[in-house]
Amino acid sequence: MSHAVHVQATMESITHVPLVRQGPDGSRQATDALAVEEPLELRLDGHPISVLMRTPGHDMELAAGFLVTEGIVHAMSQVRKIEPRPDENRVLVFLQEDVRVDLARLTRHLFTGSSCGLCGKATLDAILTHSPPISTVPEVQDEVILSAPDRLRAAQSIFDTTGGLHAAGIFSTSGDLLVSREDIGRHNAVDKVIGRAFLDRLDLSETFLLVSGRVSFEIMQKALTARIPLVAAVSAPSSLAVEFAKESGQGLIGFLRPPAFNRYA
Amino acid sequence: MSHAVHVQATMESITHVPLVRQGPDGSRQATDALAVEEPLELRLDGHPISVLMRTPGHDMELAAGFLVTEGIVHAMSQVRKIEPRPDENRVLVFLQEDVRVDLARLTRHLFTGSSCGLCGKATLDAILTHSPPISTVPEVQDEVILSAPDRLRAAQSIFDTTGGLHAAGIFSTSGDLLVSREDIGRHNAVDKVIGRAFLDRLDLSETFLLVSGRVSFEIMQKALTARIPLVAAVSAPSSLAVEFAKESGQGLIGFLRPPAFNRYA
Repeated sequence: MSHAVHVQATMESITHVPLVRQGPDGSRQATDALAVEEPLELRLDGHPISVLMRTPGHDMELAAGFLVTEGIVHAMSQVRKIEPRPDENRVLVFLQEDVRVDLARLTRHLFTGSSCGLCGKATLDAILTHSPPISTVPEVQDEVILSAPDRLRAAQSIFDTTGGLHAAGIFSTSGDLLVSREDIGRHNAVDKVIGRAFLDRLDLSETFLLVSGRVSFEIMQKALTARIPLVAAVSAPSSLAVEFAKESGQGLIGFLRPPAFNRYA
Repeated sequence: MSHAVHVQATMESITHVPLVRQGPDGSRQATDALAVEEPLELRLDGHPISVLMRTPGHDMELAAGFLVTEGIVHAMSQVRKIEPRPDENRVLVFLQEDVRVDLARLTRHLFTGSSCGLCGKATLDAILTHSPPISTVPEVQDEVILSAPDRLRAAQSIFDTTGGLHAAGIFSTSGDLLVSREDIGRHNAVDKVIGRAFLDRLDLSETFLLVSGRVSFEIMQKALTARIPLVAAVSAPSSLAVEFAKESGQGLIGFLRPPAFNRYA
C-alpha cells in the first residue's frame, strides 16, 4: 500500500468517484460525490502537534478553533501567524514570543483524531475542563430555536450533495446565522465555526451553537471553552453531555426537530 | 465543577433524564432515555494507556478490540488476562510475559478518544497501517447484503430507545449475524464486535462488517487490522475510505438502503 495516496492534497471538499449501483433492476455504472477526508497536520512553532482527519477547506479556522478548544491559546493576540499550506495538508501556527507552551506536554497530550477531544488525558482525573462555568444563558425565543435547523441546512453546501458531512453553526440570539461550517468530523465542524469566531474576535456570550447530529460531552466542552452558553442539536445528547451542561451552567437542547424540541438543561 | 460526576460509573447503557418538551401546544415535563457516555480507562500491565469515551457494557470486548485494531496485540495467546472493573470505569489488561510492548511509545501514541484511530501518529508519514492487503474478498449475494441492515436493526436493543447510538455487526457471507454491538462512539462499536470475535478466536476472512452510519478511513483500517475483507455502511463513505479500500483490497459498500446499494471498491 503506497503512502502517497493518503497525503496527496486535493484542496477540494468534494470528490467524484465511480461506483456500481446495485438495484432491483440490476447493476449499472454511476458516479457519486463524496465528502473528502484527508489528514491535516498542525505544527506549532515548527513542531508537529496533531494530525486531524478533516474535510479540506477552512483549514486556518480549523487550526484556530483547535488551538482554542484544546486550551492552547485563549486570545488571538497570543497568535502571531496562522499559515495554511493546503497543498501539503499542513497548517503552520506561530505564537507570540512571550506565549509559553509546554511543547513536551503538547506532543505527549495532543495526538488526536477527527473527533477526539480527550486525547492526551490519560487518566480519568484529567478529563475535567478548566473553563469556569457559564453564569448567564441568554434568553432565546422558541421561534428562533425552531427556525435554526432550516437556516443551517440552507447554508450547507456540501451535505446535500454527499450526505456525508456534519454541520455546525453559531447563531445570534435573534436567529442570525453568524457562521456555519461542514466537515466529515463532527468535532472539526465545531472547531471550524469556533475558529472563525476566534479569528474575528467575536464575543460569543450572546450566541448559541447548533450541530446537525448528536451532542456529546466533548461538544459541550468545546462550546464552553469558546464561552458559548447554549448548545442545540438535531439529534440526541449523550448522558454525559446533559450532566456536563448542568455542571457548566450551559443550556442544552436536543432533538431539535420542528415543531418541537427538548430542553435538557 | 466537580470531577466526580464524570467518573461515577453507572454500569448501565441507558439512563433516564428529566426534560422539558417544547411543542406547538406549549411545554410539558417529560423523561427521556439517553445513551450513557462515560470514560473508560485502559491499563496495560498497570500503566494507563488510553481513555475512551464509551457507552458502558461489553468493556472487555472494547478493550480487546482496541488492542487488536491499534496493533498492540495480534493474537489472544498474547493476552494473559483482561479484567473489566466496571465500577471504576477501568479495564486492566495483562499481557503474557514474553510479549514486548514499548510502553513509552504507547503512552506517547495511544492517548485517544472515542473515535480517534490516528492518535499518536504525529506526522503524515505515520498514518499508513502496517497490515498487509486483503487478497480475496468473498462473494456475498446481493440478497444477503440487502437483508443485513434489517437484521442489525432487529438486534439493536438500545438504539430504538435513545436514537443516539452507532451499531456495528459482523455477518457471515451467508447472512448470519455473528455479533452486534452498539456504542455512542462509532469506532467503539466496531472495536466491540472485533473484540468479541478476537476473544472467540474467530477467523473473519469469510465475513463482512456492517456499520449503521458513515464509513471513514479509520473504520476501513480497523476492519483491515481484524482481517475483515468487506465493509458495508448504511450511509456514505468518505473519499479516503474509498481510496483505502482500493489500496487494501477490501470491498466497500455504501448507502446500503434496500432495495439498492453502491459498490465503491
